[in-house]
Amino acid sequence: MTLSFGTRLRAAMDERGPLCVGIDPHAALLDSWGLTDDIAGLERFTFTVVEALADTVAVFKPQAAFFERFGSRGVAVLERAVAELRAAGGLVVMDAKRGDIGSTMAAYAEAFLRKDSPLFSDALTVSPYLGYGSLKPAVDLARESGAGLFVLALTSNPEGAEVQRAVREDGRTIGATMLAHLAAENAGETPMGSFGAVVGATLGDLSSFDLDINGPLLAPGIGAQGATPADLPAVFGAAVRNVVPNVSRGVLRHGPDAAALRDSAHRYADEIRAAVGG
Amino acid sequence: MTLSFGTRLRAAMDERGPLCVGIDPHAALLDSWGLTDDIAGLERFTFTVVEALADTVAVFKPQAAFFERFGSRGVAVLERAVAELRAAGGLVVMDAKRGDIGSTMAAYAEAFLRKDSPLFSDALTVSPYLGYGSLKPAVDLARESGAGLFVLALTSNPEGAEVQRAVREDGRTIGATMLAHLAAENAGETPMGSFGAVVGATLGDLSSFDLDINGPLLAPGIGAQGATPADLPAVFGAAVRNVVPNVSRGVLRHGPDAAALRDSAHRYADEIRAAVGG
Repeated sequence: MTLSFGTRLRAAMDERGPLCVGIDPHAALLDSWGLTDDIAGLERFTFTVVEALADTVAVFKPQAAFFERFGSRGVAVLERAVAELRAAGGLVVMDAKRGDIGSTMAAYAEAFLRKDSPLFSDALTVSPYLGYGSLKPAVDLARESGAGLFVLALTSNPEGAEVQRAVREDGRTIGATMLAHLAAENAGETPMGSFGAVVGATLGDLSSFDLDINGPLLAPGIGAQGATPADLPAVFGAAVRNVVPNVSRGVLRHGPDAAALRDSAHRYADEIRAAVGG
Repeated sequence: MTLSFGTRLRAAMDERGPLCVGIDPHAALLDSWGLTDDIAGLERFTFTVVEALADTVAVFKPQAAFFERFGSRGVAVLERAVAELRAAGGLVVMDAKRGDIGSTMAAYAEAFLRKDSPLFSDALTVSPYLGYGSLKPAVDLARESGAGLFVLALTSNPEGAEVQRAVREDGRTIGATMLAHLAAENAGETPMGSFGAVVGATLGDLSSFDLDINGPLLAPGIGAQGATPADLPAVFGAAVRNVVPNVSRGVLRHGPDAAALRDSAHRYADEIRAAVGG
């Protein structure tokens, strides 16, 4: 029987420490590693990260865009990376922010959440601009596959407020509406549900939002974007136990040296565990 | 010198008739064509459409999801299709609904809007859940490449209202806010700007929205979804001249016979031209 994503995620965070490392091979990072900005550089970067961290970090979040910019050959590198990360016991959250309706949303779900897909991931980030209801094909397939979703709710960038803080007829903001949908999706699941939210760690006090969705909260913004592990309890309150803090540049800048990558990841995992009291 | 997407789109619509054919190889459609739901079926379907229509239809809108569901090998089929469509004089709007921030948005833009990318398209659909401002790297690269964007504004699905009709502090809805950003982006451009909106043709009377953005309005919903070419003037009012009506199943269901595909596309283009008085 396939365990649910929420169950597997809780176990991985308990075992390896609550840290998600982003895999963001952008041109400036490749350059700082002494690599060329092409398929060869992309491969070298990606598999250095995979080999250094796959057996020690709980969660990985590859940014699909940085692979797609090399077309199908870049996507082929991503496929291999996802398979190797998963084989070594890492969980993969594909950060692709897909969102569409009907048969198209179902096709995105198949691409990332169907077990025999070359890009099968443990979870996928999705965008609800077409309404939470538009995501239903992905919710359904995730349940079937033991996978999860992270729905964009309150993102870490200042421009995000334009949409996410707008108010619906019932007086709730868009961000709060997404959190409420997710709480309903996860109701009754133990140790937690598989349907998470993306909530920026840089947003300051979020006490006006009900973050208690009984599911994971993927929190970008730690490290280069300015938030620290010590900030997490103040931002997330009681929900901090369900936070999956994402660090990208903060870890990746230590490459290409494998030991330095591992040291950095361990340090972040320890700091986060200390801060959240896990 | 590269002509702008707005200029090239106006010329293509005038010359070939204002029609955008969707390329949506979903499993049910492959089956109805007698094809297998695999890479071989995907290739056969895609290149049948390309060969039948590339030299006669103004705009093509491949749905990235239906290629991504086959992983990198599906994306490779998409690359070849885009190149062949463009070589035959068709304009390609890649329907990928990408949206992210900072270097990630820049990477999506590179993937689809940088001239030497294997997926270089004439325009890309983008999702503004992270705020219109988050799309700036794509706006900038589109300008540089003579490409365009279509920003999701008011989509054709009923669930979309949850986000798109929410109201900001200034009293405007999210949908209206996106239209206003696009109008500002396109100000002063002739014959029209390159930054369009996605506005569903099934939404009924849109007279409470200012659709006069001096840019194209991509309108899904004609054919199988229930709207007809004759509905367009009532939905879009004076902006109907800038509408790019999208038909997918309505045309594709006539395959795999090439002549039937062409006949259907011509019929839709003629009906639309008659309805909008172009």
